[in-house]
Amino acid sequence: MALIVYSGGLDSTVLLHYLKANGKAFAALMFDYGQKHKKELEFAVANCKKLGVPYDIANLTSITSLFGGNSLTDAGVDVPEGGYKDENMMSTVVPNRNMIMISIAAARAISLGTDEVAYAAHSGDHAIYPDCRPEFADALDGVLRLCHYWPVKLCRPFVNMTKADIVKLGDQLGVDFSLTWSCYKGGHLHCGKCGTCVERKEAFALAGVADPTVYEEH
Amino acid sequence: MALIVYSGGLDSTVLLHYLKANGKAFAALMFDYGQKHKKELEFAVANCKKLGVPYDIANLTSITSLFGGNSLTDAGVDVPEGGYKDENMMSTVVPNRNMIMISIAAARAISLGTDEVAYAAHSGDHAIYPDCRPEFADALDGVLRLCHYWPVKLCRPFVNMTKADIVKLGDQLGVDFSLTWSCYKGGHLHCGKCGTCVERKEAFALAGVADPTVYEEH
Repeated sequence: MALIVYSGGLDSTVLLHYLKANGKAFAALMFDYGQKHKKELEFAVANCKKLGVPYDIANLTSITSLFGGNSLTDAGVDVPEGGYKDENMMSTVVPNRNMIMISIAAARAISLGTDEVAYAAHSGDHAIYPDCRPEFADALDGVLRLCHYWPVKLCRPFVNMTKADIVKLGDQLGVDFSLTWSCYKGGHLHCGKCGTCVERKEAFALAGVADPTVYEEH
Repeated sequence: MALIVYSGGLDSTVLLHYLKANGKAFAALMFDYGQKHKKELEFAVANCKKLGVPYDIANLTSITSLFGGNSLTDAGVDVPEGGYKDENMMSTVVPNRNMIMISIAAARAISLGTDEVAYAAHSGDHAIYPDCRPEFADALDGVLRLCHYWPVKLCRPFVNMTKADIVKLGDQLGVDFSLTWSCYKGGHLHCGKCGTCVERKEAFALAGVADPTVYEEH
């Protein structure tokens, strides 16, 4: 059985459907790490209920202040607008976020007596997020194989796909993209201006798939 | 600067003094993960204050239930007595504990703009705790070097030392061992019967160092 690190975003929602379509038995683990776009978790819960996937939410808000200074969790740092440029997006790096989430997911997987953790890192993230790169994922897989009495594997099927590839795959799998959340601002609607909104729009355009998202600017 | 994963136990208290003696600038990060022997944190705080080491306590009690079933955190599982035998001690394994703590310590280190994390894994732990083995530490070091824009290093100077070696080193460094806590039961005094108490007593005996610990059985 695999335990998926699941955010309710576009990428991990496609991964949820992908695992389901591949007949993999799995459960989801979500994280409240004090992100401003906590709203994504409502979408995560909705998709789990829709697909009948058991889930837990790990509450890490008590340690968020230990790694402040980033725009995703720190009220004093604004989420940048102006698209997905390196200098914009670097403030959105929550240090070592994926390793923390995957470590906890591995502990949960072990506790459930199982041996696989999945996450939806993809190639579009590589430039900005060191913890989405294939070499990081490979090294992490190596650690997980040694962390307990039995090896735990790290499943990362999208690590060399673009976000547009993921949209195409999700479309083939019948994903309802309106039930996913990307915007880092976490407002009523997707803002359409922050890096992740711009990246989301571009991915739909590149994939040639209709974007059902309602953006604030429209 | 190094960030030490610090429990208030014997091994990590010697590491604290070792880093201090080596003129390393460092800070401590402690973890409340719902351990029954939470009392160890009082000793950790006392040693930090004594040595003038800044510290934080990461509260993970909100996620403890995700990896229950072990005797350290689960009220329904008794801490085993009868010494440090494999079959006894396996119930004390909190799944993937070191990886979780080191991941969070790395995030904190990055947030502080620094590049090293230290932990006190030693060879006596190898048989029981997969996440104390040198090959695990090596693999984890490899991941930390890739997790951010700059490499983070994993300092594990005791990984091939026995607990008796650590007692000897602590003795040379002038560690006040009465200011350390091992007993997994976390009672008023060390119980003297659980695996970690038995291991503690043996380490002092093997090192030829007077054990200042007051055990319940006496």
